[in-house]
Amino acid sequence: MTSASSEPPALGPLLQSISSPSDVKNLADGELEALAAEIRHSLITSLSKTGGHLGPNLGVVELSIALHRVFSTPDDKFVFDVAHQGYVHKMLTGRADQIHTIRTYKGLNGFLLRSESEHDAYGAGHAGTALSAALGMAAARDLAGDDYHVVAVAGDAAFTCGPTLEALNNIAETTRRFIVVLNDNEWSIDKNVGAIARYFNDLQTHHTFASVRAKAAEFVEKIAGKAARTLAHKVEEGAKNLLFPNVLFEKFGLRYYGPIDGHDLPLLVRTFEHLKTLHEPVVLHIITEKGRGYQPAIDNPGKFHGLGTYQIDDGSTETSSTPTCSDIFGRTITDLAKKDPKIVAITAAMPGGTKLEIFKNELPDRYFDVGIAEEHAALFACGLATQGFRPFLAIYSTFMQRAYDMIIHDMALQGLPVRLCMDRGGLSGDDGPTHHGLFDIGYLRHIPGIIHMQPKDEDEFADMLFTMASYEDGPSAIRYPRGSIKGTPVKKKPQLLEIGKAEVVAEGSDVTLIGLGTMFEMAERTKTLLEAQGFSVTLINPRFIKPMDSAVIERFARQCRVICTFEDHVLMHGFGAGVIEHLHSAGIHTPVERIGWPDEFVEHGKPDILRQLHGLTPEAAMDKIIPHLR
Amino acid sequence: MTSASSEPPALGPLLQSISSPSDVKNLADGELEALAAEIRHSLITSLSKTGGHLGPNLGVVELSIALHRVFSTPDDKFVFDVAHQGYVHKMLTGRADQIHTIRTYKGLNGFLLRSESEHDAYGAGHAGTALSAALGMAAARDLAGDDYHVVAVAGDAAFTCGPTLEALNNIAETTRRFIVVLNDNEWSIDKNVGAIARYFNDLQTHHTFASVRAKAAEFVEKIAGKAARTLAHKVEEGAKNLLFPNVLFEKFGLRYYGPIDGHDLPLLVRTFEHLKTLHEPVVLHIITEKGRGYQPAIDNPGKFHGLGTYQIDDGSTETSSTPTCSDIFGRTITDLAKKDPKIVAITAAMPGGTKLEIFKNELPDRYFDVGIAEEHAALFACGLATQGFRPFLAIYSTFMQRAYDMIIHDMALQGLPVRLCMDRGGLSGDDGPTHHGLFDIGYLRHIPGIIHMQPKDEDEFADMLFTMASYEDGPSAIRYPRGSIKGTPVKKKPQLLEIGKAEVVAEGSDVTLIGLGTMFEMAERTKTLLEAQGFSVTLINPRFIKPMDSAVIERFARQCRVICTFEDHVLMHGFGAGVIEHLHSAGIHTPVERIGWPDEFVEHGKPDILRQLHGLTPEAAMDKIIPHLR
Repeated sequence: MTSASSEPPALGPLLQSISSPSDVKNLADGELEALAAEIRHSLITSLSKTGGHLGPNLGVVELSIALHRVFSTPDDKFVFDVAHQGYVHKMLTGRADQIHTIRTYKGLNGFLLRSESEHDAYGAGHAGTALSAALGMAAARDLAGDDYHVVAVAGDAAFTCGPTLEALNNIAETTRRFIVVLNDNEWSIDKNVGAIARYFNDLQTHHTFASVRAKAAEFVEKIAGKAARTLAHKVEEGAKNLLFPNVLFEKFGLRYYGPIDGHDLPLLVRTFEHLKTLHEPVVLHIITEKGRGYQPAIDNPGKFHGLGTYQIDDGSTETSSTPTCSDIFGRTITDLAKKDPKIVAITAAMPGGTKLEIFKNELPDRYFDVGIAEEHAALFACGLATQGFRPFLAIYSTFMQRAYDMIIHDMALQGLPVRLCMDRGGLSGDDGPTHHGLFDIGYLRHIPGIIHMQPKDEDEFADMLFTMASYEDGPSAIRYPRGSIKGTPVKKKPQLLEIGKAEVVAEGSDVTLIGLGTMFEMAERTKTLLEAQGFSVTLINPRFIKPMDSAVIERFARQCRVICTFEDHVLMHGFGAGVIEHLHSAGIHTPVERIGWPDEFVEHGKPDILRQLHGLTPEAAMDKIIPHLR
Repeated sequence: MTSASSEPPALGPLLQSISSPSDVKNLADGELEALAAEIRHSLITSLSKTGGHLGPNLGVVELSIALHRVFSTPDDKFVFDVAHQGYVHKMLTGRADQIHTIRTYKGLNGFLLRSESEHDAYGAGHAGTALSAALGMAAARDLAGDDYHVVAVAGDAAFTCGPTLEALNNIAETTRRFIVVLNDNEWSIDKNVGAIARYFNDLQTHHTFASVRAKAAEFVEKIAGKAARTLAHKVEEGAKNLLFPNVLFEKFGLRYYGPIDGHDLPLLVRTFEHLKTLHEPVVLHIITEKGRGYQPAIDNPGKFHGLGTYQIDDGSTETSSTPTCSDIFGRTITDLAKKDPKIVAITAAMPGGTKLEIFKNELPDRYFDVGIAEEHAALFACGLATQGFRPFLAIYSTFMQRAYDMIIHDMALQGLPVRLCMDRGGLSGDDGPTHHGLFDIGYLRHIPGIIHMQPKDEDEFADMLFTMASYEDGPSAIRYPRGSIKGTPVKKKPQLLEIGKAEVVAEGSDVTLIGLGTMFEMAERTKTLLEAQGFSVTLINPRFIKPMDSAVIERFARQCRVICTFEDHVLMHGFGAGVIEHLHSAGIHTPVERIGWPDEFVEHGKPDILRQLHGLTPEAAMDKIIPHLR
């Protein structure tokens, strides 16, 4: 159970000297560029072994140095949106020597956690929370009569996201001192969409200094000098209606500065020095390059947004021959849609992660990427469903939490057949608690009229997608894991499954094992252990979480001495809890043991380590089952 | 179980002639104003007996007539945001003779339901969903090669709401034919807040014709004529940065028209006739007056947004001498905050409904109204909590669903002590399924580390709020009902409750009754019935849903023959399900019967009728309990 498998890579001399942000301030101006180079080297080297969000962090090296050069955490507060770009910040706040442990068990988290460092003012993992949380801090500061600075750093993609826009609407009324850094690299996880992305793009391509407010413009001109002219080559004539490109932010009451080159360290430092003197909320628009300083990441920003291990020399990665569930999903949905013109696919900025890129490439007219906007995505799907289309909404389990209200109020209440395809359902592993999909049974099962299922293997997954396509009576949901399940080949023609019908794989009289989805395999292994001890075992693949196959479960509950359920979900409000609830109401008191996650947030690390730690193993199941058989 | 108690009021002659929207088209131009007057009379008369959203509907009489004059539902689609302003639409689509039944059991729903009429393209009840859903319909139309019109009608308050802003960001990329009507009356349920509200206000006060795009401006000038000059008196000089007031929408790619007088029927009709010819997405900004035509509603728009019965002549309403839970909440929190400078209060546009207006009036510096922006509200509260403040977030149970992701990802994971005060927890009654607060145990109990409680009476409610103020280890939540509970007076000094400790009110050996919150009284009445039959009864007020007082529940479970739980929540994933889950895991198999709501959406109507219908009565409890005692 150790974390990093290899020797920690050596840090550069400047980086070694940084044990707190005050050390960043002690460097000579001329050393900052060298520090940036050391950080880049360290990131590229370390992450090649651990994986992680390389591209975003290479893009914010100068920004992070400049922030720590000018501001003083923990007194001043930085709030990084999503916080996948927080590695450099970690390195500058005493954690450089642990960066090689990132995303490994007991190592640094891949995002920010308040519990990890006093310099981490706010944790994150989901997009669009930074401006709101930072605004709360600014309001607290103003109420308490303090004078620290609050800086929210958000990528351009965060501005497609409801909470960010809600926050923008509240800034000017709430505080006079607030700095938003718009880190504009034109990429979210995938290419940005929508009017705001186009707007930012226009800013980049048509204008050097976007602010027409004389004060801001003069300041930028004064301090920017040559950097301004470097960007000026991008200016084109005929800027149409972009006479006031700063107007979107100024309408929200923020003074707009920029855009400036986000890799020009002296310019960044001078700009922040100026901004911290202001008594009005401001947005600083910086242009950065994802993957800066590492050609493979520049060439392939999508891949290098976040990835596993890679070869440093050419950025190549090992590709598994086993398709992931996402691969199966993208392929199957696309094939189904080719035969059914009513099928449409919707993603919230994740065509790569969900593999809807397959659909996008082959059926672009019926593909919709709405940006990081899960609420809108769900509602948009509802609108399509009212007109007889068959929307498949592909959103990770943990991000679907954003659409919870819409699943109740719009889908289920209206009986609209939207198909919720929840990738990363179950433990996410390295990404940790912000990304585990461990709550979706909890938040879906009590919704009237919803169908919820989970496949035991890839072939059944394709059958379930096919079944969802033909189910028209209301919303249906499917949870499936990161990576692959068993690697089972998908048959040519998918088969329609009966709604609410479980699969009885083996019948026995002593023990009933019910293995949901990914955990079916663990139930199988437990069966083997039990049979080795001479017990007779029933093995059920429930397929449906809701409606549960109560007839089958009752039947075997009556004839066996103990039931054990297996699920990749928290136990509280989980599948097994549903089995208990149902059997109790039916007056059947056969003991039900449950294997699943505890009522706590599960840390990051390799799934095997975490399962072992929390008792999600056949051996742990045996320990719970055997006492009932004596 | 009949619905309306009195004779249906007579309809005016024109209104009587309207049995479908085509009848609106058959009227002479000159008859439209008379129709509007009849509708207003009918609304004012009917709602005086049923209650309802009078103000918003009086404001959209001309708009609704104009829409049905120009467009043809059900082929064309109207999507009304929140849909509390849909009464006039109902009257024009064959339901005028039922308007007196609105919000009564088996009568018309107070919002829109797709199941109620083919003219109701989309249901709602929560704000901010219209643009997204309508955009889905427009996308469906474009894909299918159809040519119907899609019109989304949203109030200005909807534009403070994340989903609306997410939708705006997607419109221009999705379709070329889409009409948004911005119904600007400067009021949401309460006064609007934020930059967008100010922006709309500037539009109203500083400009007559806001579009500088020549085509739109010319058109408006041509058709508006006198109406334009009527609005022109509002123009002031020195419009500062408002040179391009249409720019917010145009940045999002929508052609902007307006503002025009939303009560000028001929102007509205001419405008819609023009807009339906366009092949670009447009927003039409209309100015309307809430309560138009009824002086009491104009004088008091907050009260007349939505209310119960009133006297027609002066708009007076009966005031109960029993304070509501909202009253207790507003008063208690304000009193606590006066002694504790770290307490802050946050509402999402509901100072009146939540009674935080008391806090607002007495402690304005620590009061925050963020607009209809539940996600931002929750995040903003988190930011405040990180700096040692004690935020109380007052949001109805059903609207808190919007913040579900933040409760997990921001509050619970970070252990931030935000206090969730969930008014309308339990059946909401007249407002129906979009407003019942029947899912909050379902969506909170599986979140690690959250505290969740419900008081049995008003005095305990105040104790719980006091307890929440001092609880600092993580988020805490409280659910409390619409209206009052028992009317119990609140003692002068609140008392600290032990976290996770139930109150054992009576001890007995045959039956254990556990009555959660509002339902404690029903458990008491059941106790009386049981004792009349000679049984010995334990009565528990659990106080805490999480952490549950497992020691007490186990103790009485072991000594009694049957348990019955009572809750104002769906049974699935409810409090009783938690009792079953816990006892089963503890190896205790005492039967648990449960009284609560079924796994379906509960319709609208008086709570007494609905409880009777769904078996939430002491008699129904007796029917479940007695068989275990024979």
